[in-house]
Amino acid sequence: MERMNPEKFDAWSRDALRRVEAALEAWVPADAPAGLGTAMRYGVLDGGKRLRALLVLAAAQAVGADDADAREASLRAAVAVELIHAYSLIHDDMPCMDDDVLRRGKPTVHVKFGEAQAMLAGDAMQALAFEVLTPVEDDRLLEPGARGVPPARQARLCALLARAAGHSGMAGGQAIDLASVGQPLDEHRLRDMHHRKTGALLRGSVQMGAACGTPDAGAWNALTRYGDAIGLAFQVVDDVLDVTQASETLGKTAGKDQDHDKPTYVSLLGLDRAMAHARELRDQAQQALAASGLARTDALRTLADRIVDRES
Amino acid sequence: MERMNPEKFDAWSRDALRRVEAALEAWVPADAPAGLGTAMRYGVLDGGKRLRALLVLAAAQAVGADDADAREASLRAAVAVELIHAYSLIHDDMPCMDDDVLRRGKPTVHVKFGEAQAMLAGDAMQALAFEVLTPVEDDRLLEPGARGVPPARQARLCALLARAAGHSGMAGGQAIDLASVGQPLDEHRLRDMHHRKTGALLRGSVQMGAACGTPDAGAWNALTRYGDAIGLAFQVVDDVLDVTQASETLGKTAGKDQDHDKPTYVSLLGLDRAMAHARELRDQAQQALAASGLARTDALRTLADRIVDRES
Repeated sequence: MERMNPEKFDAWSRDALRRVEAALEAWVPADAPAGLGTAMRYGVLDGGKRLRALLVLAAAQAVGADDADAREASLRAAVAVELIHAYSLIHDDMPCMDDDVLRRGKPTVHVKFGEAQAMLAGDAMQALAFEVLTPVEDDRLLEPGARGVPPARQARLCALLARAAGHSGMAGGQAIDLASVGQPLDEHRLRDMHHRKTGALLRGSVQMGAACGTPDAGAWNALTRYGDAIGLAFQVVDDVLDVTQASETLGKTAGKDQDHDKPTYVSLLGLDRAMAHARELRDQAQQALAASGLARTDALRTLADRIVDRES
Repeated sequence: MERMNPEKFDAWSRDALRRVEAALEAWVPADAPAGLGTAMRYGVLDGGKRLRALLVLAAAQAVGADDADAREASLRAAVAVELIHAYSLIHDDMPCMDDDVLRRGKPTVHVKFGEAQAMLAGDAMQALAFEVLTPVEDDRLLEPGARGVPPARQARLCALLARAAGHSGMAGGQAIDLASVGQPLDEHRLRDMHHRKTGALLRGSVQMGAACGTPDAGAWNALTRYGDAIGLAFQVVDDVLDVTQASETLGKTAGKDQDHDKPTYVSLLGLDRAMAHARELRDQAQQALAASGLARTDALRTLADRIVDRES
């Protein structure tokens, strides 16, 4: 099972990112009333590595979802997960949550536009994610040759996204995070928190990409295991980078976990064992892909490597 | 075109409310982590007149959506619109927005659970609304005899709700509201604000109920006109009640529009002309129903009357 060579992956991801940025540009409304669109666009355009979008598109590729209609569906799914991710960052940065002033190297949305507008922009972005997943007749399609997204696929994508974003997923994880400041968490509870807080949307991204094709149950389950493993690996590496990197590299405030007395994989395992754990999770992810029976998993494989090897 | 007699309407709405409260009870998770479920339930259970839910169910009845599967769909739609409405109140009451401490006669969610939990509870409730609309195989169905909600109907309901709640609907209206404090708005701009802020979800409720059946284009458009008219009437009456009623009757802080120097129909038209405008809109709504060609519009007719005649 070969990795994509780096040049091939970079070309794939450049093309994928170009499509995602163009779709976000087209979809996030400049003309929403009273500055709301401006705040929404500030919060989601031109920033971030778009890991979740890449996972959607790589998973769609893995299941062979590459006719024009499937590409329309996976591009919409990629935009939707990025909107959910971006809204969660906006709300998470607000004074009543993490109270952070820097994100992706720029002032956070509430610093720039005020708290009320930041809250509304996040709220509107969550709704927009579901709007993007459910194109209606008047909507312009994004992919050349696409005829639309079949309603059953729209419903499936909404079901996956709602569950990844909500109380049993991301929002639930944030509630645990909120309650855990200054509390000792054992590894089991720390994993549960991250499994929801970051893991649910990363796994959901993989599943939504897979739902743009018709994988059999074995492939679906393997991709879900892949999503779970890279989801947790991502968070473990995040905890490591929070300690080892400067704010300028991260584009957000470094060292804030420690400042906020938050339990992390580093505080629990130490730096070396935390990194070893991340590599172990990456290996589990690669094994899940190998067991999936799918042929075109090379972009997913490379993404798993990059999640663990990244420096920001 | 007869009105329902009051006893018959009250029996219908008692039954409808019983189903909606039971469904909310079943759906809003008590076990969401770290107190999130408690905050969500506090924010949505046991409170409110459930006007939006009643509009969904009355519109479903009007289009003859009353087999078990259609009743499952309309009940889920009713729950979803109430979740969106309740989340919007939670966020709207927060200190960075209206900074209100009283809602439905109880302390607001952020007063009771803190701002961070209130924001998360609202976020999770928006996601839950879309979760409720997209039942998956493992979900328990609510209506006896129901086999599920067809995917195409799930997708249609998500499409309608996302557009009613998002930047072009409710969230957009809130942004205009935010920007309009202390600003003179003419009637055209005031109407645009309310058309989005409250009107979009009220109209969306009617449309979602209608989407649980298969109305022809004429009936669909008539119901949409009904929804637009009662949506605006509701807000005009709200503005009137804010001036004429005490906080105890309203279950929320009275007189706050004036305190916040917000433009309202009363500040623009005066009390008498505002009430006359509300009655005019009610008549437009009734005319739309008469033109719909639908037979069972009596609950919708009575709801339009009650929206204008209410005292809280």
